[in-house]
Amino acid sequence: MNLVLLEPGELDGARATIGGRRARHIAQIHRATAGKQLRVGVIDGSVGTGVVVSVSPERVVLDVELGEAPPPPVPCTIALALPRPRVLHRVLGAAAAFGIKRIALFGSRRVEKSYWQSPVVSDDAIRAQLLEGLEQGCDTAVPVVSRHLRFRPFVEDELGLLASGSLALVADPSGAEPCPRANGAAVTLVVGPEGGFVDYELELLAAAGFRAVTLGVRPLRVENAFAVLLGRLF
Amino acid sequence: MNLVLLEPGELDGARATIGGRRARHIAQIHRATAGKQLRVGVIDGSVGTGVVVSVSPERVVLDVELGEAPPPPVPCTIALALPRPRVLHRVLGAAAAFGIKRIALFGSRRVEKSYWQSPVVSDDAIRAQLLEGLEQGCDTAVPVVSRHLRFRPFVEDELGLLASGSLALVADPSGAEPCPRANGAAVTLVVGPEGGFVDYELELLAAAGFRAVTLGVRPLRVENAFAVLLGRLF
Repeated sequence: MNLVLLEPGELDGARATIGGRRARHIAQIHRATAGKQLRVGVIDGSVGTGVVVSVSPERVVLDVELGEAPPPPVPCTIALALPRPRVLHRVLGAAAAFGIKRIALFGSRRVEKSYWQSPVVSDDAIRAQLLEGLEQGCDTAVPVVSRHLRFRPFVEDELGLLASGSLALVADPSGAEPCPRANGAAVTLVVGPEGGFVDYELELLAAAGFRAVTLGVRPLRVENAFAVLLGRLF
Repeated sequence: MNLVLLEPGELDGARATIGGRRARHIAQIHRATAGKQLRVGVIDGSVGTGVVVSVSPERVVLDVELGEAPPPPVPCTIALALPRPRVLHRVLGAAAAFGIKRIALFGSRRVEKSYWQSPVVSDDAIRAQLLEGLEQGCDTAVPVVSRHLRFRPFVEDELGLLASGSLALVADPSGAEPCPRANGAAVTLVVGPEGGFVDYELELLAAAGFRAVTLGVRPLRVENAFAVLLGRLF
């Protein structure tokens, strides 16, 4: 936790009172005592510093001074074939830490339908994981996550709008060209399921204007491919 | 498992007989039947195809045709402050899948000494994880992993030799310049512990010729920083 993320309702003037996971972390991992300065931010608001007034594993009181802007967002929309719940958990945190603000989760032929029923895909679990990512990346702006169970209507009716004005790429081992390097442009990046897209899906994506790009001959796991792509693009 | 990795001793002429985890995977995940073609490779040897002769979760027999070269290595040496065992497990697999062939694990002020006692750091566990990474990345050449418990002798006496002739970089939030883009050169990349290096350690690394580079204002978890750096560099 590189930044303590506050709910707006936890602030009373310049005083913040927090409990739960964050209080335990400050007390037991940071081992903070009164007077300790911590980096703080308000969800979807500004960042600044908080001075510990009192601390216990149940309740931490901070005097906060806010007003700095959070870091600028990364101009990237991610459309991700819903991965296994364990992988989704990691990718959501990484995406939030990296500064991505728009994430679309979609189904495809090789996405197991049972994944959509996982508790990890619930609104609450997604938000919790995004907040942890923001705490890691010292950011406050919560990414918007949407779910699209059916591939074809997503690609034909929604993805074009999401990708409007951006470089539209789909990462797939079949890609004819290497993933481009950073170019400053906004990117909409489609990442397929662990087993890849089927041909029909790649054709729909091509028709929607997405260029297939590859990271080379070595297939990578989704969470690694995702991070390598971000390093390459930005 | 994108490639079935064979021990040289499992080959008898053009026939391979395998058991254990790989047989279970071929029988239960790939659901292969006789006649199915699989990508195969021999540890530290060539790659090719294997045709399933018989299959059960206990024992798979393949007729193999080898002779292709594995993909070229990535010209990168990674020196990694020993992370938490769970993270080490993931990073080793990712490094092997990515094509890195030399990994040095080292201790530093903010590396918990207890990590060295973890079963994940044993020779057998490291090798198992590397082989899984190679199976993911369709490679056969097992990376060399070394352990260096004491920071100062590692940096002063060994790291210079490891980095000889390569671009020497240390990834640290304090870095004065952004991590460079790919330049075709060999790179030796030092990645610090989750809490970062202490100043004294950064000074030793600078004296050893390592330039401190950063990925920006957002601190990332080690496994994500590692993958983003590789995407940036190569």
